[in-house]
Amino acid sequence: MRYDVLIIGGVAAGTKIAAKTRREDLDCSIGLFTEDDDISYAGCGLPYYLGGIIQTRRQLVVRKPEQLKELNNVDVMVKQQVRAIDPEAHTVEVLDLESGESRTVGYGKLALATGARSLRPPIPGIEMEGIHTLRSVQDADTILALISEDAIGHVVIVGGGFIGIEVAENFAERGIECTVVEMLPQILPPFEEEIAKHLEKHLRANKVTVLTGAKVEGFEGEGGRVTKVKTTKGVIRTDFVLLSIGVTPNSELAKNIGLELGLRNTIKADPSGRTSHPDIFTAGDCTGTRHVITGKEAWIPMGSTANKQGRVAALTLTGSHDEFPGTLGTTVVKVFDLFAGRTGLGMKEARDAGFDPVSCMVTTKDKAHYYPGAEPISITLIAEKGTGRLLGGQIYGRGVVDKPIDALVVALSLGAKVENLSKMDFAYAPPFSTAINPLNLAATVLVNKMSGKMQGIGSLDLHERLLDPDWSGLVLDIREIPEYTISAIPGSVNIPFTELESRITEIAGYKDKEIALICGLGRRAFEGYLRLRKHGFVKAMLLEGGLKAWPYEVE
Amino acid sequence: MRYDVLIIGGVAAGTKIAAKTRREDLDCSIGLFTEDDDISYAGCGLPYYLGGIIQTRRQLVVRKPEQLKELNNVDVMVKQQVRAIDPEAHTVEVLDLESGESRTVGYGKLALATGARSLRPPIPGIEMEGIHTLRSVQDADTILALISEDAIGHVVIVGGGFIGIEVAENFAERGIECTVVEMLPQILPPFEEEIAKHLEKHLRANKVTVLTGAKVEGFEGEGGRVTKVKTTKGVIRTDFVLLSIGVTPNSELAKNIGLELGLRNTIKADPSGRTSHPDIFTAGDCTGTRHVITGKEAWIPMGSTANKQGRVAALTLTGSHDEFPGTLGTTVVKVFDLFAGRTGLGMKEARDAGFDPVSCMVTTKDKAHYYPGAEPISITLIAEKGTGRLLGGQIYGRGVVDKPIDALVVALSLGAKVENLSKMDFAYAPPFSTAINPLNLAATVLVNKMSGKMQGIGSLDLHERLLDPDWSGLVLDIREIPEYTISAIPGSVNIPFTELESRITEIAGYKDKEIALICGLGRRAFEGYLRLRKHGFVKAMLLEGGLKAWPYEVE
Repeated sequence: MRYDVLIIGGVAAGTKIAAKTRREDLDCSIGLFTEDDDISYAGCGLPYYLGGIIQTRRQLVVRKPEQLKELNNVDVMVKQQVRAIDPEAHTVEVLDLESGESRTVGYGKLALATGARSLRPPIPGIEMEGIHTLRSVQDADTILALISEDAIGHVVIVGGGFIGIEVAENFAERGIECTVVEMLPQILPPFEEEIAKHLEKHLRANKVTVLTGAKVEGFEGEGGRVTKVKTTKGVIRTDFVLLSIGVTPNSELAKNIGLELGLRNTIKADPSGRTSHPDIFTAGDCTGTRHVITGKEAWIPMGSTANKQGRVAALTLTGSHDEFPGTLGTTVVKVFDLFAGRTGLGMKEARDAGFDPVSCMVTTKDKAHYYPGAEPISITLIAEKGTGRLLGGQIYGRGVVDKPIDALVVALSLGAKVENLSKMDFAYAPPFSTAINPLNLAATVLVNKMSGKMQGIGSLDLHERLLDPDWSGLVLDIREIPEYTISAIPGSVNIPFTELESRITEIAGYKDKEIALICGLGRRAFEGYLRLRKHGFVKAMLLEGGLKAWPYEVE
Repeated sequence: MRYDVLIIGGVAAGTKIAAKTRREDLDCSIGLFTEDDDISYAGCGLPYYLGGIIQTRRQLVVRKPEQLKELNNVDVMVKQQVRAIDPEAHTVEVLDLESGESRTVGYGKLALATGARSLRPPIPGIEMEGIHTLRSVQDADTILALISEDAIGHVVIVGGGFIGIEVAENFAERGIECTVVEMLPQILPPFEEEIAKHLEKHLRANKVTVLTGAKVEGFEGEGGRVTKVKTTKGVIRTDFVLLSIGVTPNSELAKNIGLELGLRNTIKADPSGRTSHPDIFTAGDCTGTRHVITGKEAWIPMGSTANKQGRVAALTLTGSHDEFPGTLGTTVVKVFDLFAGRTGLGMKEARDAGFDPVSCMVTTKDKAHYYPGAEPISITLIAEKGTGRLLGGQIYGRGVVDKPIDALVVALSLGAKVENLSKMDFAYAPPFSTAINPLNLAATVLVNKMSGKMQGIGSLDLHERLLDPDWSGLVLDIREIPEYTISAIPGSVNIPFTELESRITEIAGYKDKEIALICGLGRRAFEGYLRLRKHGFVKAMLLEGGLKAWPYEVE
């Protein structure tokens, strides 16, 4: 048996390669092997399947094997494990997982779309029952069966990444008690700390327990079944553990035949999906790529990326030319009714990549303030000092975040400067946006900051100053008294904006000290800032994003 | 009396100039005259104020005169009509509309933000009572008073532009019978005809009567009050008429002193907001600008544009340099629960501007198909043949349209090619988008069309062929029989995709004739298209956007 094109793997990249190869070549024979029971399933939908938001298994599986046969004439063979590749003979050895029999199958071109698997680190007790991962529809079905047996009352989710947080929401929505244990100081590390803090607070407000900076030291159980998770921050009783601490590429087949590997053991590929062997191609979660902004090797596995890489690999292996330009690390997450998205580089990533970055946060409404359903969003733009080149953006809030994130994706992909964003003609009508578009505004404020017209301070930095007993500065809240009375930053002093100039002598002692001006969203603080500067307060600055974006305690 | 900076006009541009001038210069004196009772009101919100969606007048008025004084130290003088400018003496003559007294006020720099007014063409009977326009909060208050007196049972809206359609929705939501009379063959002329047809159908489905290609010939009434609208398509009984046929810039003051005027009598300005007089600046609806894509003069008055122009003018008149890059003609509209947005050039505009454009429509879901609330959108991308430069985009559907429109705004502003959009790393998670992002998909399909890998036909062109008795082609619906039975294009023939190759002899007579392949969204039609091409059907093509985007009759 021999296929002109043989594909290993049947989720996003594998099925995309199959379908696109067929469109490019109606006559070649195409075979696809997968270890799984299913092909073409929506892995990103699994948390919502657990939550019952997606109600049937059928909805998750985009195509069945017979559909890929019918529409694209692809021989799909499920429960087939490819054990080895012989690149000289152009054959693979395949084990039928049901019959246990092996056979050799020939190929003209081979495409590796083997994906990635969940990490299961050697933590003491990890082999016990009740410790699961979530990667396939079957994994989800197993967990759903436990849920329907009422066997899960309390779940510990190890890992506060995207999947972990999405699963936490979905368990919580089912009324299951949930604890997220994250080793790092914050959940969702691709986000800036201020934003992650808001998401963390919002999880807690929705009854999800979140432990950050907590390392899992071991699992304990009874009768081989997990009952306790031991962490550096205490022991948690549980009857179910979901491990969600990351994935590793399935690159062993590639490694065994000496294909070049890249970052974190990914299969190394050129932008066209070629591996180091001329007849072997690769796409999807097993494949390394590059970062659009840094140009450096990157591996940020996503179903959306797998689809694009699969299309490119199919074009390449059928003799056309195409290139995948790389990843921006764009992600978006729903945390109950709070949303957050990010793209490009974060501040730390930007510094690590050798940039000298500057950022600014702005809080505004997503729609006309008078239109029902308008909600706030806080936009952080990150740019390179000097050149003004946009490096990244992060947005969170109860309003629409994915819209401005996608606009930033285009801007980053095309090498925009922040200033370019300040006057673009974005779509405006009251049900959709504000007359001063949030991105126009955020870009304008960052341009002001870069040009020295405005000095800002982020929540994180101001919080650090407040914790520093040697800080000699002042937190000056310039909202009206009733606003200030409701909630304010501990230790702040209130002089309403309207009285600022007449009462300026009260703060005369701070002329050469830092004064952080606070208002609700940052607008009045800017007006106050300009006045203090005029009066010679050389270290005046405003709290970026306003009190609305302050993630720490208020009183 | 003399102001360092004097502003005429107090809506979006005028108040923006005032506030930004103050931020740039804390010491100068700033005066602002307006004929209106209000400043800084949200003109775009007026239709929703009429509909009761926005419930109080206060919500519409962003700032009161005293707030502009308090926050920005601007002297705001309402109900003051500037009658003349003396550019030599640097003075204006102002009439107090309440006292009837005139006075002369001096200025250092003058900013014209006089806006635009509704057109009232000399149609016979137009002077009658009950014929209104909607431009100011007062206009809306007058209409609201009539509504609350139950004096409006049936309204005729003359003009099917954005305001006309938004008002129609808002009247209809109040249970008022509504007829829209549009002189052109379609409503909302900035949209392609296929899209306008969908919006028109949706208005009808929501009980709004729409007459296109109907010219108003006169108004008739009883006792001086309008009761009938005479149109070329018949007489409509009514008790209220809203004229919404466009606006004209308030440029008379500028004209009278010989300032250069531009397109449609706008005040001509350079990108920095300078008029032809060195001490006079302009911004907002009275001001001409240029089109970002064509580089030619353009005038597309919008509150969002006025804000940006106002900021630029303030920077210029205070001695800094900034430029407004121009308009893309971006607009977005809500028509009940159907949405539509557009940016850049339409096909006709592109041809008129000297481009050789190509377009393609694609229908897809806005979110993962399995996620609750996912809805379809149809994306039309327009590009220049040969170069592949993106020229425009139009999107309609029940799904989210403003998000991809804003992404296209960035792409157009930065001179993107269609191909650039095909592999950008847009935000993906099931609650927000699809793994194959709608813009990635639309760009890929247009690239296929441009490279000759796919031949498509739009609804409009196919509909014309169907109306042509000499057309010798075939409309071949390749959906499954149950789908075809529910609704299909009149005259189409059904061969399900799965039977296409086995029954190919049935259509052998069409090998050199046009065959338009139909499926639901366009995906299967593409697979069918590839097979027909392989079998030598050289004029096979697929219906772009699928039957979902077909705006004409089905049976």
